[in-house]
Amino acid sequence: MTALGIRPEEALAAVDTAAPVLARTAPVIRASWLRAIADALDTARDDLVELAAAETHLTAQRLQGELRRTSFQARLLAERLATGALHDVRIDHADPAWPMGARPDIRRTQLPIGPVLVFGAGNFPFAFGVLGGDTVSALAAGCPVLVKAHPGHPRLCRRLAELTARVLVAVDAPAGAFGLIEDIDAGARAVQDRRVKAVAFTGSTRGGRALFDLAAARPDPVPFYGELGSTNPVIVSPEGWRTRASTIAEGFAASVTLGAGQFCTKPGVVLVPYADDFLAHLPPLPTAPMLEARIVAQYVDATTEMAGRARLAAGELPGRQPTPVLFRATVADLRRDPDLLDLEMFGPAALIVDYDELDELRAVVDALPGQLTGTVQGGDEPTETETDLLRRLAGRVGRVLWNDWPTGVTVSDAQHHGGPYPATTAPLSTSVGTASVARFLRPVAFQNVPTTALPTELRDPSTENGPAEGNPA
Amino acid sequence: MTALGIRPEEALAAVDTAAPVLARTAPVIRASWLRAIADALDTARDDLVELAAAETHLTAQRLQGELRRTSFQARLLAERLATGALHDVRIDHADPAWPMGARPDIRRTQLPIGPVLVFGAGNFPFAFGVLGGDTVSALAAGCPVLVKAHPGHPRLCRRLAELTARVLVAVDAPAGAFGLIEDIDAGARAVQDRRVKAVAFTGSTRGGRALFDLAAARPDPVPFYGELGSTNPVIVSPEGWRTRASTIAEGFAASVTLGAGQFCTKPGVVLVPYADDFLAHLPPLPTAPMLEARIVAQYVDATTEMAGRARLAAGELPGRQPTPVLFRATVADLRRDPDLLDLEMFGPAALIVDYDELDELRAVVDALPGQLTGTVQGGDEPTETETDLLRRLAGRVGRVLWNDWPTGVTVSDAQHHGGPYPATTAPLSTSVGTASVARFLRPVAFQNVPTTALPTELRDPSTENGPAEGNPA
Repeated sequence: MTALGIRPEEALAAVDTAAPVLARTAPVIRASWLRAIADALDTARDDLVELAAAETHLTAQRLQGELRRTSFQARLLAERLATGALHDVRIDHADPAWPMGARPDIRRTQLPIGPVLVFGAGNFPFAFGVLGGDTVSALAAGCPVLVKAHPGHPRLCRRLAELTARVLVAVDAPAGAFGLIEDIDAGARAVQDRRVKAVAFTGSTRGGRALFDLAAARPDPVPFYGELGSTNPVIVSPEGWRTRASTIAEGFAASVTLGAGQFCTKPGVVLVPYADDFLAHLPPLPTAPMLEARIVAQYVDATTEMAGRARLAAGELPGRQPTPVLFRATVADLRRDPDLLDLEMFGPAALIVDYDELDELRAVVDALPGQLTGTVQGGDEPTETETDLLRRLAGRVGRVLWNDWPTGVTVSDAQHHGGPYPATTAPLSTSVGTASVARFLRPVAFQNVPTTALPTELRDPSTENGPAEGNPA
Repeated sequence: MTALGIRPEEALAAVDTAAPVLARTAPVIRASWLRAIADALDTARDDLVELAAAETHLTAQRLQGELRRTSFQARLLAERLATGALHDVRIDHADPAWPMGARPDIRRTQLPIGPVLVFGAGNFPFAFGVLGGDTVSALAAGCPVLVKAHPGHPRLCRRLAELTARVLVAVDAPAGAFGLIEDIDAGARAVQDRRVKAVAFTGSTRGGRALFDLAAARPDPVPFYGELGSTNPVIVSPEGWRTRASTIAEGFAASVTLGAGQFCTKPGVVLVPYADDFLAHLPPLPTAPMLEARIVAQYVDATTEMAGRARLAAGELPGRQPTPVLFRATVADLRRDPDLLDLEMFGPAALIVDYDELDELRAVVDALPGQLTGTVQGGDEPTETETDLLRRLAGRVGRVLWNDWPTGVTVSDAQHHGGPYPATTAPLSTSVGTASVARFLRPVAFQNVPTTALPTELRDPSTENGPAEGNPA
């Protein structure tokens, strides 16, 4: 059963039926839905935050901020939708003198890919939840959405699904524009269902890879946008340490423990020139409750595995309490055990890597598995070597930072939250920012098609004779 | 061994080494390489066409046109590269008042994805060959290219590879920017090699799917841009037939036999209101040699299979000679055997489907497997039903046509040559037109990175203080 009282099969049939109806809605209409969703989130804020805090153990302050971000991103997409910025329209008028031979009139826009299945994340009950970035970017694109509820906050998922259904009815959106399924097997089956045309996932590498494999093995494979694991390496340069030691130590301590370290952008590997000095500068790292017992157990497993491959440096191995812990290794250790850089410890833990010369890190960076982020903490301006490291990081990660921390991902037009595998399964896509809508839009070219049958955005301004309310193709 | 005298392992090592060097070249420099390639193609035209004609049995006239198209597309990409149009640069300056919380400076550009493996097509020895759209779009993006030679024209592949190598040396491109491998097993192994970061393929659904599966099963899956099969349905409306019967019949005859029907955009299914009348209007369909014995054998197999599922309508079943042949079925037959619409006969053959009412075709269109193209042949202006069919086609295909034929794919900014599976394995991408470069570009965001360490295109015009020759990140 879904939260809305219908079975997975009915939910799939509903999004399938809704897809062509949704595809015909004008972008400005969908923008109004997104604004209504944002308003409803803001109105229900106190109730939602209370429920989320009870289910996730995240602080009310953190959840307030996340909810503000979530309604903001719906409004930002609404704004960009209304201006037509998301469709990358291209018009080539007929050209008899086109050098490769006479060219017909060709016009390209982007149409919704069809029903999108969303697997939200446990650590972001709002921003990557039932009404998070995946859902609102799919709705912005004109795709019906089926969300698989997260087992870590099932009551919040239901509450958000009910809110969504209520809002969509109020704005007169097609029935079937949104559905929720709760059963894990139903989720796996839906990944393989021919009516689902794209999948968005945020979570563990293991779980995401299993679902990616199902999507790729379909008779008709579909795009699988999985945001999986990342250790987000941070390089502290000698110049950075000399000039900004306290700032760096405090910044790291705050970033690695933010939200009990339960961020995909948590700095999990820090390469420092003087590890003893770095460790001595760190303020005490606070212990905070984690999302759920399953996450604590995985944290214990990951840190135990790290303890077998690196030395304990600060704190102690977590047991019942998810205490912060730091490990130590050297660049020579990384050469011996390169997978150390790929060992994500989801929680307040990091690996501190001692290096002798900044030059050694070129090879380390070049050997990195795909990452969401990579950071250099330096002095005032990048030196030549630091610039080279930033450049090399850009070849391995989705976001490069200088003198900043990777946690706290802003939502904007230029944001890119992605990266090569295993950071994601789709390295050209982002799950944050306005470019996230492109995941659910499929380019279509129209050749020699008369104005009346063209999507509104493809009509010549001079021949604009169509109604403003719809998009006929 | 490769055509350049090196083994696959060495070729892979070479593109891997070249990747970071290529990534640092300025777009204007790569534009100059593409122009040099285009010039070399034009200069060698007569020799190349003669060799291609000998190996493929395509006419010299057709090959001349294809070669003109090939050099044109290299020049068009060069032009767009030089203007910066391909990188979709986005700059968000820091904004302390950003509603979700203070925003750092974030700038996004696109960087080359890394070494690209290209499997060219047998039917387009130039446009989808060693120096075809996949190769030049990857080079435009800044990616080294490894081409798997096509067994149908091995000597032409070598000749083109030698030409490429010579040009790249002359323009001082990095060694390893281009390589050729010839062995089919080496190709399959390269798909699975961690140094290959994307694969582009044009060919059969069976072969493409097998390679797609290998790419998806990698420990680190990479994008696989496969352009596979399509039957390119054409709907002739009653109004179209009433007003343009001869034009439609002649247009179809020319399109279905163009290049002996060896086009992925060949109209393989035609839905007509009066099949007897349609068949009576057709001019004689010419027989022409096909590419190679293997293609003839596959053509015989496909038409034999169709003969078991539909009635012969014109011509006879091909034997030693690849004669044109048309089959007949009704909309009722399609309901009984929906896969008929998916049975591609690569060669001069098509299925003519009799329908009674245009309305019947809505369900036929909605049930189509993904297609490269879909066409309506109507009267002067689309009626309401025709407009609805064009709209429904847009939901199933990559390019929608009105009163035109799908063969002959122009190269331009608005072109889209793609579609849902099985038309392609990557429905958001195109293998023709300037947007084809995007397949090989990966977005990267830079947060709080000082100007001197930013890629040139991300620097503020007012602070432009970097050298024009390079792209430091």
